[in-house]
Amino acid sequence: MNPLAQQNPHRRFNPLKREWVLVSPHRTQRPWQGQTEKTAAPPALQYDPECYLCPGNVRAGGARTDKYTSTYVFENDFAALKPDTPRFSSDEEGKGLLVAEGESGVCRVICFSPRHDLTLATMSVGGIRAVVDVWAEQSLELVSREDISYVQVFENRGAMMGASNPHPHGQIWASRSLPNEVVAEQAGQDAYLKEHGCCLLCEYRAMEVALGERVVAANDAFVAVVPFWAVWPFEVMILPDRHIADLEAMTSEERDCFSAILKEVTATYDKVFDTPFPYSMGLHPQPSDGKEHPGWHFHVHFYPPLLRSATIRKFMVGFELLGGPQRDITPESAAETLRRAALR
Amino acid sequence: MNPLAQQNPHRRFNPLKREWVLVSPHRTQRPWQGQTEKTAAPPALQYDPECYLCPGNVRAGGARTDKYTSTYVFENDFAALKPDTPRFSSDEEGKGLLVAEGESGVCRVICFSPRHDLTLATMSVGGIRAVVDVWAEQSLELVSREDISYVQVFENRGAMMGASNPHPHGQIWASRSLPNEVVAEQAGQDAYLKEHGCCLLCEYRAMEVALGERVVAANDAFVAVVPFWAVWPFEVMILPDRHIADLEAMTSEERDCFSAILKEVTATYDKVFDTPFPYSMGLHPQPSDGKEHPGWHFHVHFYPPLLRSATIRKFMVGFELLGGPQRDITPESAAETLRRAALR
Ligand SMILES: O=P(O)(O)O[C@H]1O[C@H](CO)[C@@H](O)[C@H](O)[C@H]1O
Ligand SMILES: O=P(O)(O)O[C@H]1O[C@H](CO)[C@@H](O)[C@H](O)[C@H]1O
Repeated sequence: MNPLAQQNPHRRFNPLKREWVLVSPHRTQRPWQGQTEKTAAPPALQYDPECYLCPGNVRAGGARTDKYTSTYVFENDFAALKPDTPRFSSDEEGKGLLVAEGESGVCRVICFSPRHDLTLATMSVGGIRAVVDVWAEQSLELVSREDISYVQVFENRGAMMGASNPHPHGQIWASRSLPNEVVAEQAGQDAYLKEHGCCLLCEYRAMEVALGERVVAANDAFVAVVPFWAVWPFEVMILPDRHIADLEAMTSEERDCFSAILKEVTATYDKVFDTPFPYSMGLHPQPSDGKEHPGWHFHVHFYPPLLRSATIRKFMVGFELLGGPQRDITPESAAETLRRAALR
Repeated sequence: MNPLAQQNPHRRFNPLKREWVLVSPHRTQRPWQGQTEKTAAPPALQYDPECYLCPGNVRAGGARTDKYTSTYVFENDFAALKPDTPRFSSDEEGKGLLVAEGESGVCRVICFSPRHDLTLATMSVGGIRAVVDVWAEQSLELVSREDISYVQVFENRGAMMGASNPHPHGQIWASRSLPNEVVAEQAGQDAYLKEHGCCLLCEYRAMEVALGERVVAANDAFVAVVPFWAVWPFEVMILPDRHIADLEAMTSEERDCFSAILKEVTATYDKVFDTPFPYSMGLHPQPSDGKEHPGWHFHVHFYPPLLRSATIRKFMVGFELLGGPQRDITPESAAETLRRAALR
């Protein structure tokens, strides 16, 4: 890494989204007198009678969660997207300034385990494999629908990331339209393929593996890196070695490796500040909008907010909202912290 | 407003950034068992001996804050941007994937008042006018510098928005490069001008004033609306009536009107949940990159996170980070809530 960049404010380019991030490596000395977060003790109970995601309990909407024994999927009782939305498209006043269109889709909740006290980090690789299989099954079912162009699988983990329940679970929001981030990444990968004649993330993965300084974990089929253009302090991207576009393209061995690296990354996170590490994570498979996406390389993003300790987070506010993202530690030093944590 | 959109999930188009926001009007019924925020009692002391922004006190970096009596500007002791950064540009491996460049700039802090217990909402219009004048002075000085292309004036208000001190203050981050958000808004305004032969925000302002349903406040020279494409629950945009591109173009009367509407919006916010309303706000003047920006219309964004009460916020997590922004209440109902609050 350019030594000038290690010590001085600089911008880095994110070729996936074709946007910049501001890096201010010298800034971590500043004292923090602002908000501190509560640390969350991991739930102690294997079954919590008050938890609506524990097997057999009644949910707020009135439905009862099955007495499931592995994973469990149900339609979100308060879904942001619904399948039966009327289609409309309006441009009040006809000047392109008040444009709205009906959006349909499906929102589901996926419980990762019947055990209330587990997390991806503490589940067995076999247990995570069951989750990966459900993600794949659900995706396959949803992408085959005419009215779905994208299936967004994600997990909000921890109260700090808006999770309203500590029971291990994630969500699927599948929509008729392509979400903004997917549109940007599609354009970025497509442009790279056109210009360089090869896949952006294949090239990038090979480069990172050769350099090593941002690699956090690797196994027979996947690698986890702090991206060169990371925005969140300990942001991680997981990439398959092979150029595959979605879960369906993975072999059974690859699904095992994927499960293993998910456990490795989340378990490493928990060691960084000796606290259950909050994050939002999500899968980015290719769009299922009926078009070809030869440049799309499957990947997973982890966006964790903690910066300095279990109680001091990075705030994406002021300049970040009005200008653009800014980070205080370099991706290289974040990767080193993660590698050290992994050894503990 | 299209009645179908009032009751059904839909997307709205933001022509400034040319991106979509997902609106799920039916979703507010969902129960909230997640994180709740601490409510902040407004500071009671006019002078706090522990506050490094109060006149005459020593800051963490060792410098002493002057015994100021109106506004006060100083270089940020822990600046994210510095003027003397070495210029460099690197593309390790030469494949466009590890691109970095030195970024220089200036970060300053602006105290709005010597009084520790005041806020924009509780300051007098005259007091705010002094702040507007400092913003204008600072901007004028900074844009005249060769090494500055953008002057981002902003305020993070409240611990929830990362403010580390309740003393009324804002910041300026001025940079050599144009920040992402400014690049996007520049492209959006430019494209609109080219396509329609008129200014996007002039058209939009006129439309909103005629319709009324999203207007929150108005005076002789400014209007405040919840934008049709608002992302944050009670997001507000302030627009000047005249097509002016920055603070320098404002007449003295306009600066008074600007000060008055800033007070009106912030005071209204505090009434919504009877709590000091957290937000990030910032000015968006035209870039000062030496180019012409005929389509740029000066505006102010307010991005406040509270959704349902003083303690329940909107989380921009999971789907929002991986897909795109989503909101639960319509901009029209948010505007009505704000108008009602203003009357209290
Ligand atoms: O400069 P401050 O007030 O210490 O810091 C605050 O505002 C900055 C600019 O939006 C952010 O980068 C920080 O995350 C936030 O805590
Ligand atoms: O659906 P949940 O878990 O209640 O809600 C959480 O995740 C959603 C999807 O990222 C967000 O829109 C909400 O703001 C967040 O609180």
